[in-house]
Amino acid sequence: MQSPSFPTDPVALAQDLIRCQSVTPADDGAQALLASVLEGMGFEVVHLPFGPVDAPTPNFYAKIGTGRPSLCFAGHTDVVPPGEGWAHDPFAAQIQDGRLYGRGIADMKGGVACSVAAIARFLQNNTLKGSISLLITGDEEGPAHFGTKPVIEWLAARNDVPDFCLLGEPTNPSALGDTIKIGRRGSMNADIVVRGVQGHVAYPHLADNPIHRLLPALSELTGRCLDEGTKWFSPSSLQVTSVDVGNPATNVIPAEARARLNIRFNDRHTGAALTEWIREVVARHAPDSDVTVSISGEAFLTQPGPAVQCLERAVQDVTGRQPKLDTGGGTSDARFISQHCAVAEFGLVGATMHKRDEHVDVSTLEDLTQIYLTFMERFGL
Amino acid sequence: MQSPSFPTDPVALAQDLIRCQSVTPADDGAQALLASVLEGMGFEVVHLPFGPVDAPTPNFYAKIGTGRPSLCFAGHTDVVPPGEGWAHDPFAAQIQDGRLYGRGIADMKGGVACSVAAIARFLQNNTLKGSISLLITGDEEGPAHFGTKPVIEWLAARNDVPDFCLLGEPTNPSALGDTIKIGRRGSMNADIVVRGVQGHVAYPHLADNPIHRLLPALSELTGRCLDEGTKWFSPSSLQVTSVDVGNPATNVIPAEARARLNIRFNDRHTGAALTEWIREVVARHAPDSDVTVSISGEAFLTQPGPAVQCLERAVQDVTGRQPKLDTGGGTSDARFISQHCAVAEFGLVGATMHKRDEHVDVSTLEDLTQIYLTFMERFGL
Repeated sequence: MQSPSFPTDPVALAQDLIRCQSVTPADDGAQALLASVLEGMGFEVVHLPFGPVDAPTPNFYAKIGTGRPSLCFAGHTDVVPPGEGWAHDPFAAQIQDGRLYGRGIADMKGGVACSVAAIARFLQNNTLKGSISLLITGDEEGPAHFGTKPVIEWLAARNDVPDFCLLGEPTNPSALGDTIKIGRRGSMNADIVVRGVQGHVAYPHLADNPIHRLLPALSELTGRCLDEGTKWFSPSSLQVTSVDVGNPATNVIPAEARARLNIRFNDRHTGAALTEWIREVVARHAPDSDVTVSISGEAFLTQPGPAVQCLERAVQDVTGRQPKLDTGGGTSDARFISQHCAVAEFGLVGATMHKRDEHVDVSTLEDLTQIYLTFMERFGL
Repeated sequence: MQSPSFPTDPVALAQDLIRCQSVTPADDGAQALLASVLEGMGFEVVHLPFGPVDAPTPNFYAKIGTGRPSLCFAGHTDVVPPGEGWAHDPFAAQIQDGRLYGRGIADMKGGVACSVAAIARFLQNNTLKGSISLLITGDEEGPAHFGTKPVIEWLAARNDVPDFCLLGEPTNPSALGDTIKIGRRGSMNADIVVRGVQGHVAYPHLADNPIHRLLPALSELTGRCLDEGTKWFSPSSLQVTSVDVGNPATNVIPAEARARLNIRFNDRHTGAALTEWIREVVARHAPDSDVTVSISGEAFLTQPGPAVQCLERAVQDVTGRQPKLDTGGGTSDARFISQHCAVAEFGLVGATMHKRDEHVDVSTLEDLTQIYLTFMERFGL
């Protein structure tokens, strides 16, 4: 057995990761690179490909130590497509004027690199009492069906769920230390199809206008105040995103009308209850209708406790900022983790994520590494 | 000058007209044929092409006599396309089992032929005290911009508007004698465009959902009872015919939403007043919006008086039926005539109009000719 090697520099590791063109669902060697580094530090790495046999999603779970407390760093190695108009090669990981450019540096290869560098520093200077793991997926930016969800379920089935999970998504809107996410709103989509009876506008009594049934249903749905928000969540919001009939004739009452809506909901609601409500309202106004619902994720909240306090203090120690505990924004893989394990999210500054010339200040990579390291120390590993 | 020739057979004339393939805007000799027949009876024919110089709409006005009362038979020689699936050649004017088949026989070359045959019989047997005219257009089935409307305006400018106009549209749903139309509902279309501010559904406070502005506007518009109907008219009706956003993304609040609606309105309303109402409602809910209105025709009613009574009695005399005085159905060129002149509509049975294998019973051509003749006699020509 070789002696362990500790990659304590997050910048070099982040650059290596960016040079892997892992535009979802591609991997391009990103996970093998990470797995090799972790094995070099003494981790046991289990590759967990899920999904279609001919094109499985690459995931791995790496763990060192067997004691408690157990902490898991979660993350993803896939990135969104670079798009057009970059001034810097999106996969060259160039540093210019103190900034590191590359697709995924903020979301979230930088965060993954910082967690590995922080672990390296911790293991160099401490005797591990608890255990540390990494849950890495290659399908966070894609459908996410075969990524974090089956991995956390695999851990649950092995009775090996960690005590706390820290997901390194870019939670800070503008400066490192702005925001720790302790929950996320749920999200669901509904497709509504209302059928009527086609006819001539001159003889409305011989037709049944599906638009005139859809309108009051949508009015009732949009008219309800779902809630006023909670201590941790902004108010739930229902938005009709499209209404479509596509009737080119001005003298014809159409046979069918369609609408789509999205609800971002807080922990006062569940996807199932909202689904039941939508179905009831639509069916009452339009008996001949279909409602197809897709729940992207339930709302979740990690009530701020000792682990979140450790994270808050680590952020304060390094940045001098008091991070806001927040639940805003879209969904993340934390929605899957939260079903089994307390989870919080803290990473780099996300201002340029998914945009052209995605970048972070190089200094924030060192600062985030220090935050993660301080957190591990405070967490009692 | 040749001695006059009186084509008293409506069937032969109808067949000649059907053999002209005058699918709107084509004429194929239909109006020249009619004009020649009328000139042969002593009519003075004025051709009145209106519209683009290179493709004018063929119209003519033919008149005989100068006295009062003055009666005008109005009609059109253009027909809708035959479409597919005919068992009979749509332009052969075949007679089979007592039925005459052909595109336009009901709507309304048959009616035109009957009016000419009735005039021929009248002139053969009576000394004309009043005057008789025909107002014939070739653009009733098309946009109708350059047909009856400018011709009746031309007559008004010459101070030559007839006392009464009889339009030979196929007013009878199933049997000759069912229905005289003494008015028509108005019709108007409105296109509504509402602009908002596009954004992500997760941040509705940063966007302005145009659908959520359009919905209450449409609800208010559809929620108003325009009227309960009148003695002669059914209730006015507003129908939303299409709503379209075309937003494929489930996580995006769109920038724009569109709706179209049609109103069929009775004489309790005007197109202008309804337009003002729609604009006010939409602007109140959606300040950044456009409403484009097109008024196809105002509602009109010819209050039943002596002329309509003459027509009712003529129908009763020939058919034994008491015709219903009606204002239902779509628009016709009567909407233009009514701006200047009392007008009623009575023609053949319209059950197969605009359909494949359009036909009428041959016997109804003779009966309608007798009705028109009886009407002329009762009218005091």
